[in-house]
Formats: sequence, C-alpha cells, structure tokens
Amino acid sequence: MRVALLGGTGDIGEGIALRLARDTDHEVVIGSRDAEKAERRAGEYVELLGERGHDVAIEGYSNSEATATSDVVVASVPPEYAVGTVETVADDLDDGDVLVCPATQMDRDGDGFHYDPPAEGSVAEAVAAAAPDGVPVVGAFQNVAAGALTNLGNDLAADVILTGDSADAKATVGDIVEAIDGLRALDAGGLANSPEVEAITPLLINLAMNNDGMHDLGVRFQ
Amino acid sequence: MRVALLGGTGDIGEGIALRLARDTDHEVVIGSRDAEKAERRAGEYVELLGERGHDVAIEGYSNSEATATSDVVVASVPPEYAVGTVETVADDLDDGDVLVCPATQMDRDGDGFHYDPPAEGSVAEAVAAAAPDGVPVVGAFQNVAAGALTNLGNDLAADVILTGDSADAKATVGDIVEAIDGLRALDAGGLANSPEVEAITPLLINLAMNNDGMHDLGVRFQ
Repeated sequence: MRVALLGGTGDIGEGIALRLARDTDHEVVIGSRDAEKAERRAGEYVELLGERGHDVAIEGYSNSEATATSDVVVASVPPEYAVGTVETVADDLDDGDVLVCPATQMDRDGDGFHYDPPAEGSVAEAVAAAAPDGVPVVGAFQNVAAGALTNLGNDLAADVILTGDSADAKATVGDIVEAIDGLRALDAGGLANSPEVEAITPLLINLAMNNDGMHDLGVRFQ
Repeated sequence: MRVALLGGTGDIGEGIALRLARDTDHEVVIGSRDAEKAERRAGEYVELLGERGHDVAIEGYSNSEATATSDVVVASVPPEYAVGTVETVADDLDDGDVLVCPATQMDRDGDGFHYDPPAEGSVAEAVAAAAPDGVPVVGAFQNVAAGALTNLGNDLAADVILTGDSADAKATVGDIVEAIDGLRALDAGGLANSPEVEAITPLLINLAMNNDGMHDLGVRFQ
C-alpha cells in the first residue's frame, strides 16, 4: 500500500510516518500545503531513521499530489483543518481509496481538557461528510500520543480503535496499524461510534496532568 | 471504612460488594429500597464467598439505613435512578461522608451504544447537584464490567478512573479501589472531567460487540 500522511510535517503525522517506514513495507508519503516543506521533512525523517540503522524511502509532496498517488490517505492535520484539507484534496481521491481520520477536537478550562465535537457528532463524521462518495472514512490513531510514536526508543503497547462504515476499509487500515510494532487494532463498529473514541484523547491528557509519572499515555482494552 | 452499596442487589453493586468483602478490611453494607431484599442478598453474597473459603460479614439494610451508618456511599443503581436515590438518602448523609457515582448513561441505535449524558454534563455532576453541601462526590467504577467483578475466578487488571472536586474524597475512594486486588486508581481531575470517563463504558460494549473473544472489558492506561 502507498500511505499518504497529509499534514505529515506535524507531530502526529511524523510519528505515524516514522513507525510505518521503520516497521512496515508500506510506501510512506508526506503531504503538506507546501510541497517543498513536505520534501524537506521527508528527508529529515529518512535521515533520522538512517541514524538508527534503518534504510528507508519517504517522499514528500503537496497534499494534492500525495493524495493522488496514494491508496490510503491519513488526514493528520489539526482538527480545525481536517474538513478543509479533505475538501482541498477531494478531486485527488479515487474510488476505493481509504481516508483515515486521526483527529479529535478539544477545548480546555480550569478543570482540564474536554471533548468538544463538531455538529456532525465527531471529527470523523465531519470528515466523512466532506469526503467524496465512494471514499470510505475510518477513524483511527486518535488515542496514540504523538510523543509515544516519535520517540523511536519507546516500545509501543497500545490499542488503536477503528470506526467506519466499510468493513473492507477497516480491514485495510487494521492491517496497516498492526504492521506497526506494538499496536493492536480493535473494531468499535460504525463511524457513528466515533465520539466515544475521540473523547478518550482529552482524558489521556487529564490523566497525564493528574498522575505523577504518566505522560504520552495510550490505552489498552482487556 | 464502612462502605454502603446502594442498589447493592444489582449486578455492579454485587460485584463491588463481593470484591470489597473478599479483598479488603472494609465493612460492606448492601442497601436496597427493600430492606428485606438487601438482607437476603447480603446473605447470598456471604454464602457465595463462604463456598470459596472466605469468611466475611456483609449486612443488608434499606438504602436510608445503609447510608446513615456508612462513611462511603456508592450509588450503584441504574443511571435513571441515581439522582432520585441520592435525593432519598440526602438526610442520611453526614458532612464528610463521600458519595461515589459509578453510573453512566447510554442509548443504543443500529450502530451500537452511545454516551447520552444528562443536562448537567455527566451522571456524576447530576448526582453532585442532588447531593447535600458538604458531601463530596467522586466518579469511579464506571469502566469496570459487573461481570468481570462478579466472576470471582477472574483476576482483575483494570484501571478505575476517579474524578472529583475534593482531593481528600478522591484519596479515600482511591484507597478503597486499590485495596481490591487488580484494580489501580487514576486521578482524572475535577468532577467536570467525568463525561470523558463515563463515555468509555458504551465504547467497551461496542468493542465487545465487534471483536471476537472480547467481553466484560476493562481499560488500562500506560
């Protein structure tokens, strides 16, 4: 598979790109609004992995080009840009491509962080509403901390929860997730079940804020 | 400590009562709207633990009597009765007693279960609004499956997330939680952070419905 990380110059995109390139045989493509920045960051990721003895190829393109040449497209952009980014690349998505939404939306008050979903119910559902017909959306990766991914010395032991209305698309994303060392994919049902998954992310931050020694938390179900 | 399980004849109350009586030195009291039923169920729990070689005392009273004589009161009733039950026992709660809310509120559609909080933001906050001043409320136990607790052959390995505005009350509840074998208490901050905790419970059911071999799920953070 060829996997594009739109906004792959940011921390969660970087984390997924590094782990995919290191652990799997998938082709990894960094997308950015700025193609030159994407290319530069892709080069930095290749160098970083090279220093650790991993000889990998990562390419960088504009979000549009990255999308047009990929099978699986991860909208790893800040939540406020998720829908806009998908609209920008809608013409570059082919029927059968899979769009992955790792975003959640939060606000903060004196108590901590709170889930603050858009009117569609969840960021994943808002992204699906903006995606072309024939391009299934899968929610995934919301509850894996960017820091846990980018720290390549850190052995992951976390679950990635998948939501989506296409079983095939979920299977595709599940295979990619489980190709990363230490990640397990779990199916939480349809895309309408995304709010409860996206809501875990602010909880992870609240737990890190209130418990000594906890940071870059992930979640496991058993 | 003397711990009352209001609605302790139901499955989550039974589970907490059995584990507290088996694993800890706390006094365990079953409360019910029907004192005779509470007494009968308490006797059944004692017998069940006795068959497994545990010689314990569990008493049964009306919710009102159970509350009046206890230090920590767990409103282990179905969510639609949580506020009403707390109103019923409000006069029996003393200053300094701690009220524990293990409830969440869900609805179900074709996709699965969804968090459906009351207008106060969470069941825990609704219970706090109904509790007398001077009686702190702690959210806890929402994400531990009743079946995992009542199956005494099952070794627990789960986190119990605490929310609450009184650090002392959270510490009291945390000590009780961690006295149960296999449970770890984590602090998620103030009571306003309860929605993200209560929202995990429908997700646990959705995961059990969509993944072979998963049932009575709990959650761990790491």
